[in-house]
Amino acid sequence: MNATTPVSPLAPESFPALPAVAGVRLATGACGVKYEGRTDVLLAELAPGTTVAGTLTQSKTASAPVLWCKECLPDGAARALVVNSGNANAFTGGHGRKAVEGTVKAVADVLACRPHRVYAASTGVIGEPMAYERIVEHLEGLGSDLAAADTAAIWEAAARAIMTTDTFPKGASRKVSIGDVEVSIAGICKGSGMIAPDMATMLGFVFTDAKLPAGVLQAVLSPAIGRTFNSITVDSDTSTSDTVLLFATGAGSAHAEITSVDDPALDTFKVALEEVLLDLAHQIVRDGEGATKFIAVTVTGAEDDSAAKRIGLSIANSPLVKTAIAGEDANWGRIVMAVGKAGEAADRDKLAIVIGGVPVAEVGAAVDGFDETPVAQHMKGQEIDIAVDVGIGDGRATVWTCDLTHGYIEINADYRS
Amino acid sequence: MNATTPVSPLAPESFPALPAVAGVRLATGACGVKYEGRTDVLLAELAPGTTVAGTLTQSKTASAPVLWCKECLPDGAARALVVNSGNANAFTGGHGRKAVEGTVKAVADVLACRPHRVYAASTGVIGEPMAYERIVEHLEGLGSDLAAADTAAIWEAAARAIMTTDTFPKGASRKVSIGDVEVSIAGICKGSGMIAPDMATMLGFVFTDAKLPAGVLQAVLSPAIGRTFNSITVDSDTSTSDTVLLFATGAGSAHAEITSVDDPALDTFKVALEEVLLDLAHQIVRDGEGATKFIAVTVTGAEDDSAAKRIGLSIANSPLVKTAIAGEDANWGRIVMAVGKAGEAADRDKLAIVIGGVPVAEVGAAVDGFDETPVAQHMKGQEIDIAVDVGIGDGRATVWTCDLTHGYIEINADYRS
Repeated sequence: MNATTPVSPLAPESFPALPAVAGVRLATGACGVKYEGRTDVLLAELAPGTTVAGTLTQSKTASAPVLWCKECLPDGAARALVVNSGNANAFTGGHGRKAVEGTVKAVADVLACRPHRVYAASTGVIGEPMAYERIVEHLEGLGSDLAAADTAAIWEAAARAIMTTDTFPKGASRKVSIGDVEVSIAGICKGSGMIAPDMATMLGFVFTDAKLPAGVLQAVLSPAIGRTFNSITVDSDTSTSDTVLLFATGAGSAHAEITSVDDPALDTFKVALEEVLLDLAHQIVRDGEGATKFIAVTVTGAEDDSAAKRIGLSIANSPLVKTAIAGEDANWGRIVMAVGKAGEAADRDKLAIVIGGVPVAEVGAAVDGFDETPVAQHMKGQEIDIAVDVGIGDGRATVWTCDLTHGYIEINADYRS
Repeated sequence: MNATTPVSPLAPESFPALPAVAGVRLATGACGVKYEGRTDVLLAELAPGTTVAGTLTQSKTASAPVLWCKECLPDGAARALVVNSGNANAFTGGHGRKAVEGTVKAVADVLACRPHRVYAASTGVIGEPMAYERIVEHLEGLGSDLAAADTAAIWEAAARAIMTTDTFPKGASRKVSIGDVEVSIAGICKGSGMIAPDMATMLGFVFTDAKLPAGVLQAVLSPAIGRTFNSITVDSDTSTSDTVLLFATGAGSAHAEITSVDDPALDTFKVALEEVLLDLAHQIVRDGEGATKFIAVTVTGAEDDSAAKRIGLSIANSPLVKTAIAGEDANWGRIVMAVGKAGEAADRDKLAIVIGGVPVAEVGAAVDGFDETPVAQHMKGQEIDIAVDVGIGDGRATVWTCDLTHGYIEINADYRS
């Protein structure tokens, strides 16, 4: 958002070349919802017959567009998506509902569809009435600008229009076969905290030209979200607006009909979709506010996978662990602390910790004659690997986070003022 | 610990004048467990007949002295307390148990009591075998140095011996009557994070010369801890070593016998004890690593008191709320977010937020024609008051925290190296 903010040191070299997804047309515009001199609205038109699945924030103070999407999702059908940056339309009372209804109705008019086929998402400042009229004014023009999502440039423009405090646009894709027919999966997302309620809400939109019933789509999406977007954390905060939507246009080459999530023909699609989601989720961590290190925390030996994930998140959310890593300090005592506070079963006397592949602690104490040199070397890198075995069972999980630096304080202590 | 660390700007003017507590004798010594040139061991001798109650960390990786205290507490009887700073004796495997047993046995020998009457606590670096022999060597001398806890200087010396990253010694006291007999309550504590596993563990020790059965003592202590030490947070981290012990020597002037926690003669004692605990807990927040603001968060209108406390802690632990306050920014949108993520019932459309006595948001949206000037003025002060009503029921709670500043990052990113 701030033109002078440097791109995250953990960013990919460039925006990836996203493939064409049949049945998706995109347009972006500079509507001036809040920002000047940049695009701030994305309109996507989806072919008739498009199905949709989604996961939305569990927040008790969810934004108006989140409540709207929750209302639409049971139908499982979509014809459009409209996203704005600059205003989250959250905590805006009755005006918030009016703003989302006004926006989706205008989209429905332009695309000649029912309002409940139009999905909406907003990200930006919260608690300020949204000037949705500025979006409505531009919708005719956006409708005329719609173009097939078949070049990397169009995808990148879409990813840029939804950015807030992001320092780089985020996209990921895979081509994969269902039976012997190739389909595309392309996704974009934004976010540079698990959330910052002003700006860094996580939004993700994934499109495929495969033809999949909404029920199958949701059954594929939900578990994959648990292992991807719900396994990352920047600052432990949860947005009023977090949204992931997956659209299947069915407009690609015809493949065998899929009626069940358990159909083996869907196996490679599932893997590819999860890879896209994980790639996008990792990019959010890599754009974490102030991040200088990308951290993977793998927990094994827990009671079950859920327990492993809770222990992993306890480590990944610990300010003490994250500041130690920022300081390039292999302070494994703080990892022991974070395991202890997770509240999950752990055998203190079997606990083992490996950092950057080097055993640091085992059987509940520091490794005998431990040489810190290789670990200290690992801590100087940008990619930090922490593995913890808690000595109880077979549960395992990996979560990802970034370090907690002066940059985070600078961005968040000074943002609104 | 670091002689150059400035005293917290939120510190009290001076150490308070703690009163004599009959039946308590104290000695401090410089044993060189880790630190040079300062005291690092506190020995307290308690009169025969002293009862004890305690609350100890729920951490699954609890330290050896915590496990020892948990083993002793069911007896409800104490003759001594030994505390060292510099090494937490946590995650030290079999050696940890040996160290605590060696220490308490040496104390028991000097004071001619059973080892299980000797309570122990350790705070400092974790994962390093503790040089407990250095304490043992000094115990004869410490035994000779024991002096009645009847001057403010003796109490202050005790509070200083247990400090780690603390920037000031912490004490609080009350004189109160049971029936018409005056008794004293005096407490000391240390901690400058809810925890930092290296150094900032919270330890609190409170002494009274009242005569109270151990069961009554525990029944008085537990609920008060919930509203005091368990209602503060600096960084949401939980120590391997957190310990609060309450000793009643029964050596003061004789008062009416108390056999039940519900005895009305105990009412003023309960209030006074809670005041001492709250005073100590607040001092820990005021010494929070890098703290520049003391923040009280009061939540009303929750489903019940527990729900209110969880919402309060969600606000108080949010890095985004804490950094906004560090930046003197009345960013109430982040408070809305933190309410939402707490997972407790909240009515988005009734939510009201008051900062420094000024309504900021009500009925689920910003206050009409809100003038930010008085709130901005409040944010510049050292004492920040946030009140949130979530519009559901009668549950209420207050929690306390500090802001999240560059100072926190500096202290924790660079500590061990």
